Amino acid sequence: MDIAKLQEYQRSFVALRDWDQFHSPKNLSMGLAAEAAELTEVFLWLTEEQSRRVMTTDKAEAVRHELADVLFYLVRIADKLGVDLEAAFWEKTKLNEQRYPPELSRGNAKKYTDL
Amino acid sequence: MDIAKLQEYQRSFVALRDWDQFHSPKNLSMGLAAEAAELTEVFLWLTEEQSRRVMTTDKAEAVRHELADVLFYLVRIADKLGVDLEAAFWEKTKLNEQRYPPELSRGNAKKYTDL
Amino acid sequence: MDIAKLQEYQRSFVALRDWDQFHSPKNLSMGLAAEAAELTEVFLWLTEEQSRRVMTTDKAEAVRHELADVLFYLVRIADKLGVDLEAAFWEKTKLNEQRYPPELSRGNAKKYTDL
Amino acid sequence: MDIAKLQEYQRSFVALRDWDQFHSPKNLSMGLAAEAAELTEVFLWLTEEQSRRVMTTDKAEAVRHELADVLFYLVRIADKLGVDLEAAFWEKTKLNEQRYPPELSRGNAKKYTDL
Repeated sequence: MDIAKLQEYQRSFVALRDWDQFHSPKNLSMGLAAEAAELTEVFLWLTEEQSRRVMTTDKAEAVRHELADVLFYLVRIADKLGVDLEAAFWEKTKLNEQRYPPELSRGNAKKYTDL
Repeated sequence: MDIAKLQEYQRSFVALRDWDQFHSPKNLSMGLAAEAAELTEVFLWLTEEQSRRVMTTDKAEAVRHELADVLFYLVRIADKLGVDLEAAFWEKTKLNEQRYPPELSRGNAKKYTDL
Repeated sequence: MDIAKLQEYQRSFVALRDWDQFHSPKNLSMGLAAEAAELTEVFLWLTEEQSRRVMTTDKAEAVRHELADVLFYLVRIADKLGVDLEAAFWEKTKLNEQRYPPELSRGNAKKYTDL
Repeated sequence: MDIAKLQEYQRSFVALRDWDQFHSPKNLSMGLAAEAAELTEVFLWLTEEQSRRVMTTDKAEAVRHELADVLFYLVRIADKLGVDLEAAFWEKTKLNEQRYPPELSRGNAKKYTDL
């Protein structure tokens, strides 16, 4: 995925609508959280098992669109803040590896502060 | 960004800890929303203007880590559901272009249902 | 529950710390959503069945505290906006009764727009 | 506000629709977070100043309804878990008073872990 290309597209989409004035990182983080919450609404009353089969139901499009909305905000915030998402990913996974050693975490979902 | 590589890494990270049992799409969507909410907490008491300068403050690492966490869950859900994130992005932007014609949306942040 | 008394306490708590400057409805709504997300984190990796027994576990205090945090923000926003929460409750339930007629909703969790 | 009366009403509302099967604390916490996120969407593109005047705009009803939805889930979770919301409120405020001594918190919004 060419993140820079997505961001290039977004800049033009936003400029055409004069929306940059609304796109403070604070507002974008609220938008991101709201879209993520909308995704949970698709799954809210499904069992975990039903959620695994959601793409074979009439909710498949809603799932794709909510994931796209989350991606939109995520990529946009990263652009506004100058964060390299992939580098951030690997920086954080390094921390996760330390926090969750396989021998302590295996088969349980305890938070690292409880390990 | 090589999404497939991130997903490959995640599968191995998860397998080593026997965590796949917890990774239903429903649970992952909850995790995604929780991480997005943690990002908003970084910005909660900042003004919009302060939020624009957050990467020059001691909160920069927290921002990178929360963005990474959101990306982690987003990519993981997409893997579990077999969704192509980039294709979903362009599918949704096409819809957004229709919903928000520049001449109606310029300079206002009204929802498409109010345009 | 004497909501006015809770709000009276909050006003004094906030005044003593000179925090009213931060308590715009926008910020308070972000805080509310963040606390609600923290509550979901307690349940994230539990099964629904396990979540029913959470008050018999060592997470009981966390649940009480997160519920209290949600209540704190809810009551505070209502105070800042002059909304009567109980009246709003009955106003909305009237709407819910119309949207979800028992004969159409029985045993399914479909949204009213899908009924 | 007579919380027990609200809960009594909810039990009957839920029973008439046979919805208790969906109301695990886990699901209810997701619903609560989703409703809180919907409230933030009302404020998303408003400035803080505009958010203070929201009840004089055409969004007033949406605010009342989202607050009502949050209250609905909050009261319902408390019922399912047997939590006394008012007692939880005072228990948590006691903790907040210790975490945020006025002399250290005055005029700043630092988290207690940073004080």
